[in-house]
Amino acid sequence: MALIVQKFGGTSVGSIERIEQVAEKVKKHREAGDDLVVVLSAMSGETNRLIDLAKQITDQPVPRELDVIVSTGEQVTIALLTMALIKRGVPAVSYTGNQVRILTDSAHNKARILQIDDQKIRADLKEGRVVVVAGFQGVDEHGNITTLGRGGSDTTGVALAAALKADECQIYTDVDGVYTTDPRVVPQAQRLEKITFEEMLEMASLGSKVLQIRSVEFAGKYNVPLRVLHSFKEGPGTLITIDEEESMEQPIISGIAFNRDEAKLTIRGVPDTPGVAFKILGPISASNIEVDMIVQNVSHDNTTDFTFTVHRNEYEKAHSVLENTAREIGAREVIGDTKIAKVSIVGVGMRSHAGVASRMFEALAKESINIQMISTSEIKVSVVIEEKYLELAVRALHTAFELDAPARQGE
Amino acid sequence: MALIVQKFGGTSVGSIERIEQVAEKVKKHREAGDDLVVVLSAMSGETNRLIDLAKQITDQPVPRELDVIVSTGEQVTIALLTMALIKRGVPAVSYTGNQVRILTDSAHNKARILQIDDQKIRADLKEGRVVVVAGFQGVDEHGNITTLGRGGSDTTGVALAAALKADECQIYTDVDGVYTTDPRVVPQAQRLEKITFEEMLEMASLGSKVLQIRSVEFAGKYNVPLRVLHSFKEGPGTLITIDEEESMEQPIISGIAFNRDEAKLTIRGVPDTPGVAFKILGPISASNIEVDMIVQNVSHDNTTDFTFTVHRNEYEKAHSVLENTAREIGAREVIGDTKIAKVSIVGVGMRSHAGVASRMFEALAKESINIQMISTSEIKVSVVIEEKYLELAVRALHTAFELDAPARQGE
Repeated sequence: MALIVQKFGGTSVGSIERIEQVAEKVKKHREAGDDLVVVLSAMSGETNRLIDLAKQITDQPVPRELDVIVSTGEQVTIALLTMALIKRGVPAVSYTGNQVRILTDSAHNKARILQIDDQKIRADLKEGRVVVVAGFQGVDEHGNITTLGRGGSDTTGVALAAALKADECQIYTDVDGVYTTDPRVVPQAQRLEKITFEEMLEMASLGSKVLQIRSVEFAGKYNVPLRVLHSFKEGPGTLITIDEEESMEQPIISGIAFNRDEAKLTIRGVPDTPGVAFKILGPISASNIEVDMIVQNVSHDNTTDFTFTVHRNEYEKAHSVLENTAREIGAREVIGDTKIAKVSIVGVGMRSHAGVASRMFEALAKESINIQMISTSEIKVSVVIEEKYLELAVRALHTAFELDAPARQGE
Repeated sequence: MALIVQKFGGTSVGSIERIEQVAEKVKKHREAGDDLVVVLSAMSGETNRLIDLAKQITDQPVPRELDVIVSTGEQVTIALLTMALIKRGVPAVSYTGNQVRILTDSAHNKARILQIDDQKIRADLKEGRVVVVAGFQGVDEHGNITTLGRGGSDTTGVALAAALKADECQIYTDVDGVYTTDPRVVPQAQRLEKITFEEMLEMASLGSKVLQIRSVEFAGKYNVPLRVLHSFKEGPGTLITIDEEESMEQPIISGIAFNRDEAKLTIRGVPDTPGVAFKILGPISASNIEVDMIVQNVSHDNTTDFTFTVHRNEYEKAHSVLENTAREIGAREVIGDTKIAKVSIVGVGMRSHAGVASRMFEALAKESINIQMISTSEIKVSVVIEEKYLELAVRALHTAFELDAPARQGE
């Protein structure tokens, strides 16, 4: 008999009909013999409705009071699901974040979980009840209601699974698992049976929006096996776990991630003196602009070129900050490009395999795709290319690294 | 500097605009120097919307879970008002029933307040904050969310006023006070400056739906001065307080209450033996039917007639129960009438004045209104009459007891 934490998101509980479907699903699992803790989000749209109410009062709602309002969304769904379970003869009880109690710090709207008291839940499980917990919320040491920020319900699920030493934390979504890449771009993309936390982090932060990054970090830290499943379709989903099988045969690359959200900025002809990188990036970060890739080439005639990427929404702002910097440090010019895309190959397998990067570059060269920037990590190689080549690049890499679904290969 | 508890109902916080108006009102009071605790209901319609959601899952929602859902209504309004106050530069903080903490018994959906912890509120008041508390809800000793039942926000206000030994509990409504009778029936009806708890109880239970009966009982028990005021119009309202002025000149009758909700049942030719009243009313009460007036006349030929009133909705049910009883005890027949109305004169002054009842009967006789039943209490005389005479009776009594507004008298 396993202890499973199941988390259902906003669209999975977006209507009474869907809540009934979730109740059916939970009932089946319960009857199969597992102990279940179910974590829920608010009905889809509800959190926005509540924020809108607050925004009608003031553009800048007091964070403490905003949490008081917003936390009601999950409070409604947990009680509705509990009713639906009891109606089906499944003993169940609901708990708010305060009732559990999920202790957080006092950073309203973006609180972090400090501790979870598992006593109540354990007592209920022992009595045979399904325990339904409000995601996304907690309580600080002074009894103030807090929320974890958007997507926080995933984090609640993982934190509960860690506190209860659950066998698995199942995240139910609108996809049936994690894919080798976006199936809309590559029809031959395959669902992965397994992926490591590290790989998932790289996939998630690169734009595979299946799971919240924070919850994956959390799961990795506490070694909670995470499984991504479809809310309303049967299937094994994708298990995200630690890398136990380094010695066993596995693909070098698990997946190909990409995004189009970034823009590139280059400051050229920078006098190459110590501390110049800080002089360039200091003002950017002081303007609260997040920087992703950073590349500096070897210097040439005592000047160097310095390139980095930012979110496309912040391109204009970053450009004007950089213009100022260029004047101050005597750089030649600032150029930029918003029509770029980033493509990354991700896989723990590349640690032990040389030549992964060159195989990537070769595949792109074959399609005559020019590489503008390169950056690498232990389990990832990312390149920036012209946006119009994005789909072509992803498909070429998917084939080159033998990720295409066998049945469809060569279609 | 007084400590005032102000309670605003659902229509007073029924929209963002109204919440802003309430915030303005609270701000003015605060600036006048009083310490303020504000108790709020849910936005009008919200509680019904939440109950509807639950009813879509099941006709008989688990009471514990229904409370979890329904209590979110007030949680939203307290945060909205608090935001609106802070926006206006008025320091404020919101508390749910659990946060205060308003300890209740575990009777979900109709819990009773056992104790209120006033420490947090006192600390906030000391810091100059307006404290905004969710009405209608509390928490039981196990940390379960409870609600007090419909209209429970009035009770929360009074209980908080009692716990804090507040100088006054102000109930803001959609009327500007308690009237001598319903102004829609008697245009000359006057607003009362003052009324006693006992009188208010009689007026309220007889159909003047300004205040919840429970909150008036509560206020009387703890001697909390209650004031009924209009949410959005200026005016002194009506103060409900203990009867301190018995020696001072005051009208004999404070008001005239009435209702049309009742039906009358008579069982005739009942053998007049000891215990017969129980034999008749026992099965009625066992069927969960509430009985209001009961009249038994002196017996005649060893049989008697026994008459009582029930809510009109329960007339059919009561009639069939009574038919059974009649067969069992050998009574002659059961007759009934749903076209009746009850009219009552209420006033602590009648304690020391003889002849109040006869003055009432005289006024009705003058209009040729036949009296079908009579019942009396210390401060009330009630009669049942044919429904069609209701307005005529109320107007006649209003004039006979000199309650008509002087300015309009003789109009």
